[in-house]
Amino acid sequence: MHLTSEQRLDDGVVEREFTLGEIPGTLWTPGPDTSAAPVPLILMAHNNGLPKAQSRLVARARHTAAAGYAVASIDAAGCGDRPRSDADERARADFRRAVQAGEADEGVFEAFVGPLVEQAAPDWRTTLDALLALPGIGGPVGYSGWTALGIRLAVAEPRIAAAGFFAGGYVPRAQREEARRLSIPLLFLLQWDDEGNPRQRALDLFDAFGSREKTLHANLGGHTGTPWFELEDGFRFYDRHLT
Amino acid sequence: MHLTSEQRLDDGVVEREFTLGEIPGTLWTPGPDTSAAPVPLILMAHNNGLPKAQSRLVARARHTAAAGYAVASIDAAGCGDRPRSDADERARADFRRAVQAGEADEGVFEAFVGPLVEQAAPDWRTTLDALLALPGIGGPVGYSGWTALGIRLAVAEPRIAAAGFFAGGYVPRAQREEARRLSIPLLFLLQWDDEGNPRQRALDLFDAFGSREKTLHANLGGHTGTPWFELEDGFRFYDRHLT
Repeated sequence: MHLTSEQRLDDGVVEREFTLGEIPGTLWTPGPDTSAAPVPLILMAHNNGLPKAQSRLVARARHTAAAGYAVASIDAAGCGDRPRSDADERARADFRRAVQAGEADEGVFEAFVGPLVEQAAPDWRTTLDALLALPGIGGPVGYSGWTALGIRLAVAEPRIAAAGFFAGGYVPRAQREEARRLSIPLLFLLQWDDEGNPRQRALDLFDAFGSREKTLHANLGGHTGTPWFELEDGFRFYDRHLT
Repeated sequence: MHLTSEQRLDDGVVEREFTLGEIPGTLWTPGPDTSAAPVPLILMAHNNGLPKAQSRLVARARHTAAAGYAVASIDAAGCGDRPRSDADERARADFRRAVQAGEADEGVFEAFVGPLVEQAAPDWRTTLDALLALPGIGGPVGYSGWTALGIRLAVAEPRIAAAGFFAGGYVPRAQREEARRLSIPLLFLLQWDDEGNPRQRALDLFDAFGSREKTLHANLGGHTGTPWFELEDGFRFYDRHLT
């Protein structure tokens, strides 16, 4: 793991850019003022592989670090700003066109997001290994964000102890199946009027999760309208399970 | 208002029994150690008019008072341990029989709960007037518990500024209509596998509330299985809107 930049933010949070082979990542930590005990790690991913540098994810990561967690995000293979093959680019362009035309049905999502999750998961696991080897960062590990990737990682990774998922109207068939195998505590966040995430599909997914402790939080409004207090409710969830 | 008993609990909370005409009530307050500023009041009612002395309600009220609120509950007309007419007793016996036989359909609930809400609401408003006249208790006022009564009160009472509702699978027709007229912030708590509260009816009710700020919390399990952390999430909701 190579650190490529480091900056201290106003609230003491340290934001470091790193590379791990071809994987670019960002690590946010509460800064050196905290106690010597390792801080728990939260992996934070944007739905459908949006860039880790996207402002809403960065704001969420910084606040979460300020609350006492190490937070990491990467642009995994096929995601964010990573170079893509011509075939990947075509799939992405087809997907965007369908979304903009309001024609993104289940088949369109399956064709684009299914392979994206399969490609991305190994990079996240590689990153997890590297992060847990750093001094000051410990387990248990939490996950936050992209529902489909989180299901994949939580099924594959016994080190992930709690997960917060967002949206989940469209989740690939493979992860809808894997959802039944989950057993960790879950906080599932849903926007009631999310134009891109059919409500009934999200409720069906919540119903399918195998976990004995699972909580649904739904709020009025569209995809980007999640109220600020849900971030703090999320901290309380992670505090219960990671600290 | 006549105080009939007073006891100080281990955590400093003071529990007072009172009568207001024919209305028996209980008032829990954080005790005299708090600052001189009036504490906000939360009216707490059990679903379908169960007694205010029921242990789950008492536990919830004591914890809420310990968190800094004045909490009041009453046995309103037709509810709890209040004397009932022969007709009331028959309606209650019919309702219980239907519930125990698993035959409590919408008609059974409508016939029992509809009149109960109409009878109970005036007693709660009388109580609210009396409580707000007490020194040390102020507004804005919150509501917690019985969904149907809470809808009725919130529509009628501009002093109620935020409400937490529980369950809501069966709500009388009149309150399903009134739900659209609500505009205060709502926290709607749902048990995903509540045998007595059909999930889809509760979700439809959440959808119907007119409030712009409304949040649904759903947890796995049956009617009495609400996890303890929801009580604290409720405090955070009231803290945002009443303090």
